[in-house]
Amino acid sequence: MKAWLSRLQDLDFSPASPEELAKFELGSALPSLSVRLEADPAMGEGYRIRREPDGGTVISGGSSGILYGAYALIRSSLSGVSLPEDYASAPRYSLRMIDCWDNADGSVERGYSGRSLFFDGGRLRYDPSRMRELGRLMASVGLNVLCINNVNVHFPAQLLLEDYLPEAAALADLFRPFGVRLMFSVDFSQPMRHGIPTADPMDPAVQAWWKETAARVWKAIPDLAGFLVKADSEGRPGPFTYGRNHADGANMLADAVRPFGGIVIWRCFVYNCRQDWRDTKTDRPMAAWDNYAFLDGQFAENVILQIKHGPFDFQVREPLSPLLLGMKHTNLALELQLAQEYTGHQIDIYTMIPMWHELFDELPTENIMSVAAVSNLGNDANYTGHPLAAVNFFTYGLLAWDPSVDAASAVTSWVKMTYGFAPDQEQALSSLLLSSRGIYEKYTAPLGICWMVTPHDHYGPNPDGYEYDLWGTYHKANRDAVGIDRTAAGTGYILQYPEWMQRKYGDPATCPDLYLLFFHRLPYTFRMQDGRTMIQRIYDDHFEGFAETQAMAETVRTLPFPSPDREIILERMDRQLRNAKEWCDIINTFFFRLSGIPDGHGRKIYD
Amino acid sequence: MKAWLSRLQDLDFSPASPEELAKFELGSALPSLSVRLEADPAMGEGYRIRREPDGGTVISGGSSGILYGAYALIRSSLSGVSLPEDYASAPRYSLRMIDCWDNADGSVERGYSGRSLFFDGGRLRYDPSRMRELGRLMASVGLNVLCINNVNVHFPAQLLLEDYLPEAAALADLFRPFGVRLMFSVDFSQPMRHGIPTADPMDPAVQAWWKETAARVWKAIPDLAGFLVKADSEGRPGPFTYGRNHADGANMLADAVRPFGGIVIWRCFVYNCRQDWRDTKTDRPMAAWDNYAFLDGQFAENVILQIKHGPFDFQVREPLSPLLLGMKHTNLALELQLAQEYTGHQIDIYTMIPMWHELFDELPTENIMSVAAVSNLGNDANYTGHPLAAVNFFTYGLLAWDPSVDAASAVTSWVKMTYGFAPDQEQALSSLLLSSRGIYEKYTAPLGICWMVTPHDHYGPNPDGYEYDLWGTYHKANRDAVGIDRTAAGTGYILQYPEWMQRKYGDPATCPDLYLLFFHRLPYTFRMQDGRTMIQRIYDDHFEGFAETQAMAETVRTLPFPSPDREIILERMDRQLRNAKEWCDIINTFFFRLSGIPDGHGRKIYD
Repeated sequence: MKAWLSRLQDLDFSPASPEELAKFELGSALPSLSVRLEADPAMGEGYRIRREPDGGTVISGGSSGILYGAYALIRSSLSGVSLPEDYASAPRYSLRMIDCWDNADGSVERGYSGRSLFFDGGRLRYDPSRMRELGRLMASVGLNVLCINNVNVHFPAQLLLEDYLPEAAALADLFRPFGVRLMFSVDFSQPMRHGIPTADPMDPAVQAWWKETAARVWKAIPDLAGFLVKADSEGRPGPFTYGRNHADGANMLADAVRPFGGIVIWRCFVYNCRQDWRDTKTDRPMAAWDNYAFLDGQFAENVILQIKHGPFDFQVREPLSPLLLGMKHTNLALELQLAQEYTGHQIDIYTMIPMWHELFDELPTENIMSVAAVSNLGNDANYTGHPLAAVNFFTYGLLAWDPSVDAASAVTSWVKMTYGFAPDQEQALSSLLLSSRGIYEKYTAPLGICWMVTPHDHYGPNPDGYEYDLWGTYHKANRDAVGIDRTAAGTGYILQYPEWMQRKYGDPATCPDLYLLFFHRLPYTFRMQDGRTMIQRIYDDHFEGFAETQAMAETVRTLPFPSPDREIILERMDRQLRNAKEWCDIINTFFFRLSGIPDGHGRKIYD
Repeated sequence: MKAWLSRLQDLDFSPASPEELAKFELGSALPSLSVRLEADPAMGEGYRIRREPDGGTVISGGSSGILYGAYALIRSSLSGVSLPEDYASAPRYSLRMIDCWDNADGSVERGYSGRSLFFDGGRLRYDPSRMRELGRLMASVGLNVLCINNVNVHFPAQLLLEDYLPEAAALADLFRPFGVRLMFSVDFSQPMRHGIPTADPMDPAVQAWWKETAARVWKAIPDLAGFLVKADSEGRPGPFTYGRNHADGANMLADAVRPFGGIVIWRCFVYNCRQDWRDTKTDRPMAAWDNYAFLDGQFAENVILQIKHGPFDFQVREPLSPLLLGMKHTNLALELQLAQEYTGHQIDIYTMIPMWHELFDELPTENIMSVAAVSNLGNDANYTGHPLAAVNFFTYGLLAWDPSVDAASAVTSWVKMTYGFAPDQEQALSSLLLSSRGIYEKYTAPLGICWMVTPHDHYGPNPDGYEYDLWGTYHKANRDAVGIDRTAAGTGYILQYPEWMQRKYGDPATCPDLYLLFFHRLPYTFRMQDGRTMIQRIYDDHFEGFAETQAMAETVRTLPFPSPDREIILERMDRQLRNAKEWCDIINTFFFRLSGIPDGHGRKIYD
């Protein structure tokens, strides 16, 4: 199984360079085409594809640019979307990253596709042929950075910088011909493993240790992309321990890696994960802004702040994180999550690109310089557990290259490349994928509420599951109303946004429906813009979401997926149906018990 | 640490017999007393203690009777409660059992006192000196059967009947001088480990396997008490698989063990643990009756049905299981739980004897022939995790010997034997222990609702935690009312009780308060017998429960517990205070959100 690579020939050797790989791919995928490769190092990752008068095709570009051009040509051919006669393309973002949450013991945090592709039993341990496939999967959609270890750096993953460095360098060698550079998550307190009594970024011994370490690491892997850091977050060590701020911490690491062209990706995921549910002053979505916005302009040039797309944590529906709009003088990366932590565990079908486009509707593409996505890969034969979850990896690559990529054509390309169905089937599957996020959203937590999930596991409904817990994720539903007032009259969260977004979301009468309960606390009898009451809208969405899932299942059953995809997809579809039914009934019952308001259409809501 | 044995001399040898042990205990604990032991095998476990004209004391009895007499004399002396001049006593119940839920890997299911005393790493592995202490702990309060392995028989615990039998026999030898006989939990499907394709109790090969196995087991351990079986329960194998009923299953095993004087303890814990929360016809408390009552009179004489005290599962407040009253022609054992699964995890102080007395208020002592209690022991130095949890083991022994034992004097005896405090401190601790269950009940789920606990873990509040789950444990609280109507007009559960109990519980106007929401669904405005509304009673109980826990903590801090008990008790008391505060606030908020009715006394209930 090679996901959409199944249409390509097996790659049973390690190419020496991107150019050699490009030649192999073109020769085997498009044997009748005469293609000439023209090196133009100045073009870097960009490429140009032009038809010559003699009927031949020329791909020019830098080393990996040529490879990306070759894949663009192959994608174009396999998906039947022809390129212009003379077509040039360059990536919008220079770092297009995959962040794996793989632990050294071989487990994958929030992994739904088997175990780690890179680690087992506390060691780097991998199948070289799968590494090549992974390199191709990335290169074929233009992804160029792979962070192999979890941001929660559990021992012995620290040893990537130490004892395991030679093995890690060998892995970097494997990925280099695919244009993929490695990155490592690092443990901010790592100097303390070496007799230094502190990890204070202002301490000279700490600074010296990181400098020496960076020199050693980049000597072994000269093109290492950089270090990824989760600090002071959910129990991770960080600068706060020493009374320092995050610019102090990030800049110290940046100094260490700068001589080698390394960068520091610093995750902005700091909040109080020991909040008292009784505390109504603290509002978790405000935390990232409070911790970072005042530092705008203080980060070194080779530091990139990596910010989750929403202010919570990869929920189905969140507004854009205000931090992505508010730090004009800082390098920013947008963090997405391919792993379906809150979005169905790669059991439920959930295609993400429509959601990403909503983000870019509010986020100027210039605002950010890089994109990262938490990986949805594991050592399952098909890499993504659910075969249809591969569409997210594929379309993420296209989006990271060009955020304006059309969602429907990106999804259709994937369908064509992966299955080669008849046109009506291809159309049916593409539509199904494109609508899947909206359906999932309908049957889960309503109208931007978030967090009505089974605690810890995050699959399946639990309306009050996090309500009295420490995580700052409350909806405070009572018999009259639900939601948190995050306007100026409430927690004031909305004031973190620019004026135009305050206007967009601030008034419940005009706030887009699907964000209503994220920003407002409202009575069940609140009139939506279409005239329905809010409670009726909740009931309607849930009944519709389940009905649409049933329809989706009907469609899925008619499609001629090859084995074993077919068996896997049908089995997961059954689980999604059960899940959707549970969500529908439990959410409706939860609100019916509170509100006492029956469904306006007399459908069955359980007592 | 030896719990209350700390007042006795160390036992650093293995006594050869109960008589030898009795001599050692008397000689070391009461050295100035001249005691003569007089064997009278006809008295069995009973004993007589009489003062002779020469000032000497005579203890007569069977072998273990003499030992129990010796401990009675020692308890009397250490606790300062003198016995009559001529005192005879015999146990009410012939089997007084401790059921350990210890797994072969050394973990303890629902264990809160460390790991197993008997198993580690898949093997029998124990400290002989701790076995002697455990033997003394049991003998000193008259307990005579020890089932060492979990009723959920996980591999390789089955091997107690096979490869591990010689080691198990050695363990039985260790306990024999303490009057303690071993028992084994067995796996109903065990014949299938040996090439027999079925475990059908009617299959001759299965019957033959069990007969051969029993012969082999009793040959190694001639005084083995018997087999304990959890069948067709929470995923365990059982006769239902083969279309047989539980009499078929139990009687087959009974046939196998009868030649050796063995008995079969058959647990009546069968219910649908995959219930749909939408299903309002099924009412879990009715399950045991439905599965067993019709079999009354059909069980072999050496079968004892072991029935949990309540119809659910060891909740803080349940009525007596109707099955204990309804099977007049079957041998029954009452099952209690010393392990504080739902009652505070041996973090919160929870003394059980007042609760046990409530059971015996409704349960004629003649109705049952044996008692069993799930162990609260582990390999913690003090055996019970919380030093004060030892009172439950101690008083359970006294109660199993004589159910009419006075709760206050039993608890006070334990306090005297364990700590030897000054009288006012002793009084303070005894009162605290005796009131602890009532306090715990006040701050947890109200008025017999049950199950508002953190799922799986069972410590701490989660009002809706099991509400949409598979376990049949629902309260169905909505904005108007709470509880399940279990009267004749509702699920009909109450009809499983004798007439007088139907009258006692059936009418909400006269039903005892603390059972109100177990039997009835009522509006929050329901008037309690004292004139308060039900919702006000809930608020009052929770505020009082927390306040009384604070007072308990004050008392605890003043008491001169020796180290390390003091440190352990104070640390756990802090955790209990936090737990009580969480319960108080979360339960009150949960019902306030639903009902919208504020506290009548204006105390703080969080939104």
